[in-house]
Amino acid sequence: MAKIAVLGYGVVGSGTVELFYKNKDSIIKKAGKDLDIKYILDIREFPGSPYESKFTKNIDDILNDSEVTLVAEVMGGVHPAFDFVKACLEKGKSVVTSNKELVAKKGAELLKTAEANGCNFLFEASTGGAIPIIRPLHQCLAANDITAIAGILNGTTNFILTKMINEQMDFDEALKMAQQLGYAEKDPTADVEGYDACRKICILSSLAFGKHVYPDWVHCEGISKITAEDAQYAENWGGAVKLIGSVKKTADGKILPMVRPAFVCNGNQLSHVSDVFNGIMVYGDAVDQVMFYGRGAGKLPTASAIVADLIDAAKMNGTSISQKWEDSTDNSFIADYKDDVVAFYVRTEGVSKEKVAEVFGEVEYLSRENQPAGELAFIAPEMKEKDFDVKAAALGGKLLGTVRVLDLEG
Amino acid sequence: MAKIAVLGYGVVGSGTVELFYKNKDSIIKKAGKDLDIKYILDIREFPGSPYESKFTKNIDDILNDSEVTLVAEVMGGVHPAFDFVKACLEKGKSVVTSNKELVAKKGAELLKTAEANGCNFLFEASTGGAIPIIRPLHQCLAANDITAIAGILNGTTNFILTKMINEQMDFDEALKMAQQLGYAEKDPTADVEGYDACRKICILSSLAFGKHVYPDWVHCEGISKITAEDAQYAENWGGAVKLIGSVKKTADGKILPMVRPAFVCNGNQLSHVSDVFNGIMVYGDAVDQVMFYGRGAGKLPTASAIVADLIDAAKMNGTSISQKWEDSTDNSFIADYKDDVVAFYVRTEGVSKEKVAEVFGEVEYLSRENQPAGELAFIAPEMKEKDFDVKAAALGGKLLGTVRVLDLEG
Repeated sequence: MAKIAVLGYGVVGSGTVELFYKNKDSIIKKAGKDLDIKYILDIREFPGSPYESKFTKNIDDILNDSEVTLVAEVMGGVHPAFDFVKACLEKGKSVVTSNKELVAKKGAELLKTAEANGCNFLFEASTGGAIPIIRPLHQCLAANDITAIAGILNGTTNFILTKMINEQMDFDEALKMAQQLGYAEKDPTADVEGYDACRKICILSSLAFGKHVYPDWVHCEGISKITAEDAQYAENWGGAVKLIGSVKKTADGKILPMVRPAFVCNGNQLSHVSDVFNGIMVYGDAVDQVMFYGRGAGKLPTASAIVADLIDAAKMNGTSISQKWEDSTDNSFIADYKDDVVAFYVRTEGVSKEKVAEVFGEVEYLSRENQPAGELAFIAPEMKEKDFDVKAAALGGKLLGTVRVLDLEG
Repeated sequence: MAKIAVLGYGVVGSGTVELFYKNKDSIIKKAGKDLDIKYILDIREFPGSPYESKFTKNIDDILNDSEVTLVAEVMGGVHPAFDFVKACLEKGKSVVTSNKELVAKKGAELLKTAEANGCNFLFEASTGGAIPIIRPLHQCLAANDITAIAGILNGTTNFILTKMINEQMDFDEALKMAQQLGYAEKDPTADVEGYDACRKICILSSLAFGKHVYPDWVHCEGISKITAEDAQYAENWGGAVKLIGSVKKTADGKILPMVRPAFVCNGNQLSHVSDVFNGIMVYGDAVDQVMFYGRGAGKLPTASAIVADLIDAAKMNGTSISQKWEDSTDNSFIADYKDDVVAFYVRTEGVSKEKVAEVFGEVEYLSRENQPAGELAFIAPEMKEKDFDVKAAALGGKLLGTVRVLDLEG
C-alpha cells in the first residue's frame, strides 16, 4: 500500500484526482500495489467536494506522515513549490510534477536530492502535457547520439498562429479569441513571448545533453511581432510559421538551445501540428527522426502524465530511476546564436530588387494576395546571423519583418 | 558486467552490432554496468569481419554460457527463432526482439516463460521500428483507458501509396519502384497484402487490451486493389488513402482489430505520414489522442529500439518489467467487422445518380480530373458494413472500387 499526496487543487490537481479515481482499478493493477490519495494540499476551501476529508493546508501533515510515499506537485511556480518538493524528497518521498518552471530552474538540484534520498523526481508532465516525451527520450532513444530536438511546445501560441494562417486573423484578434476560449491567460506574456516554451526546451536540452540549461541562457523570441502577412508568405513559400523551441549540437561541441518563430516547410511534420496541439521532433544518429504529437496542456491530458509517473514511482519504490543530469555553473557550453548559420525570411517596403541583389545576391522571392507595390518578401541565402544583421541593415527602406527558416528537416 | 548474444547477422543484426560499438560508451553509462557482445549467431560465414571471433553457428554456445544474460533475437520468422528464444528465457537470459511474427504468434507464451524465469522479453523493435510505441503505450499512457489505436504500420505500402497519391503512379509502377529502391521484397505479399501490418496491430491490440490477439482472427485487406483513381478521389475528398491497422473498443465490450486501406481526412495527422515513415495514433480517455511518428524499418532505426531494450534489460536484471498480457483460447472477444458502422467510398461505372439516390439516399459526390462520363464516385452514408454490402450489390452497373473511410478523428 502506498499513499499519495497531491499538492495543489487547480486545473491539473483536480484532473489528477479525477483521473486517479476514474481508472483506479487498472492503475492499481499496473502499479502492482494498492494506491490511494490521502491528502490534497491547497490553501483554499472546497466545501462539498467528495474529497473534502483529504484536504489540508499544512504541508507538515504530509511531510510527517510516513504512509505517504508518493507526492504529485501540481501547484506551479517556484515558491513555495520548490521548498515543498525538496522537503518531500529529503523525507524519501518520490515526487512527480507538471511544474516546468520548477524543473527548468531547479531540476539539477532536485534530481540530486532525490538520488541522495533513494527516491525519484519524475516530470513527464512538465513538457508536452499528455505527450510521452521525457521517458521515451531518456529510455527508448537511449542507444542514440541525440543531435537535435525541435518542437512546438506551447499550445496557446500554436492556436494563435493557426488562426493567423487558416483564417488570416491578425495577432491581436487571434490572441483575443484564444483568451475567450480559455487557451490564453489574461496576461498572456509567458506564452506569447516564448517563456513557457523556453522552460520546456531547457528541460529537454538538459535531459538530452546531460547538463542543466538555465532559462536565462537561452535566446528567446515570441510571436507578438508575427503578422498575418508573414503567415501568408510562409504559405506561399510552402510551409507555416510556428513557434519553435529547439536545441542542436554545434560543430564546436557546444549546444544551441533557442526559442523563436520560424518558417517550417510542409515536408516537416511539425508544419502540420495545428491548433492547441504540440509536436516534438527528436533527431538521433540511429533513429534519424521521430516525432511525438498530442495535447500539450489541459486538465486530463496533463493528469495522464502525472498519474503515469505516479504508477512508475510506485513500481520503483526504493530504486532511483530518475533521469539525471549534471548541474552547470556557467554557460560556456551554450553556443552564441549569432554565430549560427541560418536563412532568413525578409519582408521589406521601399527596397528595389536591384538593391536586394546587391546586398544578398540571389534570393527566393515570395508573393501574397493583394501584395502592395513596393513590398518585397524573400528568403535570403544561408549565412551567419551576425552577417545577416549587417546585410539587413544595409538594405535601406523599411524592414517590415524577419523570421528565421527552420534548418532541421523532418 | 553483462554479455550479449545477437541471434542473426542480417540487416537488423549487423545494425545492432554496429550501433552498439558506435555508441558503446554512452550505452554503458546509461545501462549502469559494463556491457559487451560476446556471440553473434549465424549459419553463414563472415570472413574478414571485425567481429569474426564472436561468430558461432551453435545456439548451445550461447545457452550454456552463464556470462550471457542478454540476447537480441533479430533472425525473423517463427522457426527456429521461437525455440531459441524460449530456450534462452528458460535459462533466465532476457531476450529482446524485432521479430513481429514471433511476438504476434507466440507473444503470450514467451511473456509467461520470461516471468516464470525472472527475466524479460522485450519487443519495442517489433512494431514501428525506431518509433517508441510499446513502452510509451504500456508505461506513459498507463493512466488511460485506451479506446482505440490506428496506425500506418508498414513503410513499404505507405511508400507505394505516397507515389500513387503524389505522382499519379498506378499500383504496379509504384511497387516496381519500391522494389528497385530496396523498400519492397521480390515477393512483396507480406507487405502489400497487409500481413506485416496485421502482425503489428495484433501486438498493439494484445498490449493495449490485455489478451493475445492472433493474426488469424484479424480481418486483413491489402492495397493491391487500390488504384491511382481512388487516390485522386481521396485527394478531392480532402484526405489520402492509407493502409491502416487499427483496433477499437466496441459498444458490446469486445474489440475490433482490422487492417485495410482507408480514406484518412487531412485533419488527421496520419494523412500527413508519407513515404516509408510510420505513424501510430493512440486514443485514450485522458490523453485524447497522441501520435508517434518515425521510421518503421531499416537497419539503424530498428537497431535503435533493439539496443534501447538491451539497456533496459541490463538495468532491470533480475526484475521482470515485461509488458504482460493473457493468452486467449478463442476469439469471442473479437467483434465481427461486418457489424461495424462505417462509411464507404464507392466508385462505379454505368450507374445513374438516380439509382445511387434510390439505394443510398443522399451521398457526397467526389470528382477527379478527366473523370469519364458514366463514372461516379461518392461517399455513402454510415451504416453497418453488412448492410452496405447489400446496398452496393443493388446498385447495378460495375463496381470499380470501394474503400472504407477511417472513423477515428485525429
